[in-house]
Amino acid sequence: MSVKPLLEAACGRFPERLPVWFMRQAGRYLPEYMEVRKNVDFVKLCQTPELAAEVTLQPLRRYDVDASIIFSDILVTAMAMGQKLTFDTGHGPHLEPVIRSAQDLLCLKETNALKDLGYVGEAIGLVKQKLRPEQAMIGFCGAPFTVASYMVEGQGSKDYAQLKRMIYEKPAVLRKLLDKLIETTVDYLLMQVDAGADCVMVFDSWAGNLAPDDFREWAFTPANDLLKAMQQKGIPTIYYPGQGSAQLFSLQGLAADVVSIDWRIDLLTASKILDSQGLEVALQGNLDPLALIAPEEVLRKKVRHIIEQGRLTKRPHIFNLGHGLLPITPPESLNIVLSEIRDEA
Amino acid sequence: MSVKPLLEAACGRFPERLPVWFMRQAGRYLPEYMEVRKNVDFVKLCQTPELAAEVTLQPLRRYDVDASIIFSDILVTAMAMGQKLTFDTGHGPHLEPVIRSAQDLLCLKETNALKDLGYVGEAIGLVKQKLRPEQAMIGFCGAPFTVASYMVEGQGSKDYAQLKRMIYEKPAVLRKLLDKLIETTVDYLLMQVDAGADCVMVFDSWAGNLAPDDFREWAFTPANDLLKAMQQKGIPTIYYPGQGSAQLFSLQGLAADVVSIDWRIDLLTASKILDSQGLEVALQGNLDPLALIAPEEVLRKKVRHIIEQGRLTKRPHIFNLGHGLLPITPPESLNIVLSEIRDEA
Repeated sequence: MSVKPLLEAACGRFPERLPVWFMRQAGRYLPEYMEVRKNVDFVKLCQTPELAAEVTLQPLRRYDVDASIIFSDILVTAMAMGQKLTFDTGHGPHLEPVIRSAQDLLCLKETNALKDLGYVGEAIGLVKQKLRPEQAMIGFCGAPFTVASYMVEGQGSKDYAQLKRMIYEKPAVLRKLLDKLIETTVDYLLMQVDAGADCVMVFDSWAGNLAPDDFREWAFTPANDLLKAMQQKGIPTIYYPGQGSAQLFSLQGLAADVVSIDWRIDLLTASKILDSQGLEVALQGNLDPLALIAPEEVLRKKVRHIIEQGRLTKRPHIFNLGHGLLPITPPESLNIVLSEIRDEA
Repeated sequence: MSVKPLLEAACGRFPERLPVWFMRQAGRYLPEYMEVRKNVDFVKLCQTPELAAEVTLQPLRRYDVDASIIFSDILVTAMAMGQKLTFDTGHGPHLEPVIRSAQDLLCLKETNALKDLGYVGEAIGLVKQKLRPEQAMIGFCGAPFTVASYMVEGQGSKDYAQLKRMIYEKPAVLRKLLDKLIETTVDYLLMQVDAGADCVMVFDSWAGNLAPDDFREWAFTPANDLLKAMQQKGIPTIYYPGQGSAQLFSLQGLAADVVSIDWRIDLLTASKILDSQGLEVALQGNLDPLALIAPEEVLRKKVRHIIEQGRLTKRPHIFNLGHGLLPITPPESLNIVLSEIRDEA
């Protein structure tokens, strides 16, 4: 059996080389991605297995990374449940109709992962054939809270006023929505694993907006329900609380193997907080994605700092960014990061 | 001499009643504020002492708060330095021309606080006459990093790509800009104190976007230069690192009397982090501003939680929000908060 460094780290072992991949490593910063997008919109791209597989593989042709993450979107589960997803240029996702009441919940469809989201599984199967034995295939989903926040707001939001209003005024409605999302998402993740995903990553991108008590109840607990379901099946998991440095204090009982850390905190500090929560997880992260626009020497210094911090934690470490790659990233910056990592190791 | 509870807390003592005020307590959620704004734009309002004083006093007529903060904007220092400030409805502030190079710095004017920003002092003088003896008058400014971020980006930003580019590529330019801002802002704060401010608050609203090493160098150090200048004059200070829960780990040597805490972390946790930084500061905060749209019982519970957390810290505590009031706030919510605080005390 071949050894995948990323999975080694996820399982609490120390792989021979530091595993590395980049959140949103397939995307708009790559000219070959923009070439594909000329002829197809974002949602259609996600739903077309051959094209999704193609753009997933694009960064692997350029970079010696240890993992591939399937090209998709966290909101495909909302689509499966019957919402229409569109993207306005420069304004992010829109979902409609929005969910604001018990009545609105009735419009949501029962989902079947294979039937509604099989296109993601197909894409995973196509990518998997092309991976080198040491490369891990990562499946992913949006965490229930984050997906619910889009379903309720209808779009990204600065304050999440509608969502918080639901927490305060209609907690039973939100709980039902989250329960539906948990059910749909567990099936979706298991389908991705059946299709070839070696591990799964749960993105709770908006969890960082909540106060600790609300975070624990509305974001952590539903996300952890997903993670527990994966744990029971022996599937390695990565948990990412977006903008969630402060939320690390509220992770007691987390059922993940890896926590992906935001760039706003040093890995060693993050590790100490996780110690206080009794968590023996591996760490992933946590370069500021904007560091990739820095001159080479500045970038190398920041990469070295993170490698050093990772070592000090005495935890297995998967090098990554603290957030997804931005479209303004120069593609050659990733090779600088990789060369620094391989030289250090 | 009258005793002001807020100043007592800022000086490390425990006042007889829990001091409370609300960030952005004058503003769009009040119908009487909207009435004034019908006839004058935001910038003109800031620059007209009688009107600025009037809207500053509006919340004091409704609420039994322990402080008044002068109605103004963090970007008045950028205006004083020669940039034009405008507000697009719904899109926040715009500054032009933007500062991106050493050449651009040459366009900035030398400032004189009394001449360029005297309107703020005049407004403070007018408000001060109307305060009750126990109410503190708070002056404020934007921290150098946050004001620089607007001067460089020209507007608010999600990623601060231009600003980070300057950090990486033109650190000497950014340092000069920050030095100019420190000089202008120290004079500006001293002018506010001369005019009647009892203490000053430094808003580093965007500090939370930086990785720890960048935060320490580019946000903390310049802000602390301001705070040290105030400390030397014996002026009490409140420091607010916006979205800065993770930044509390990087505050060693902070020269402030009070740290204003974001809502994403419990006060007791924040206090323990500040212990680790050797800081004997008082705490201000930290209700989620969106909690003010919650039903009364939910809101009261959240207020009680914060009061209790404040007590557990064994530090003096000034009750406040974790961020500014939002326009959707129902004005009566503040009376609920105040009644819960006064009943508890």
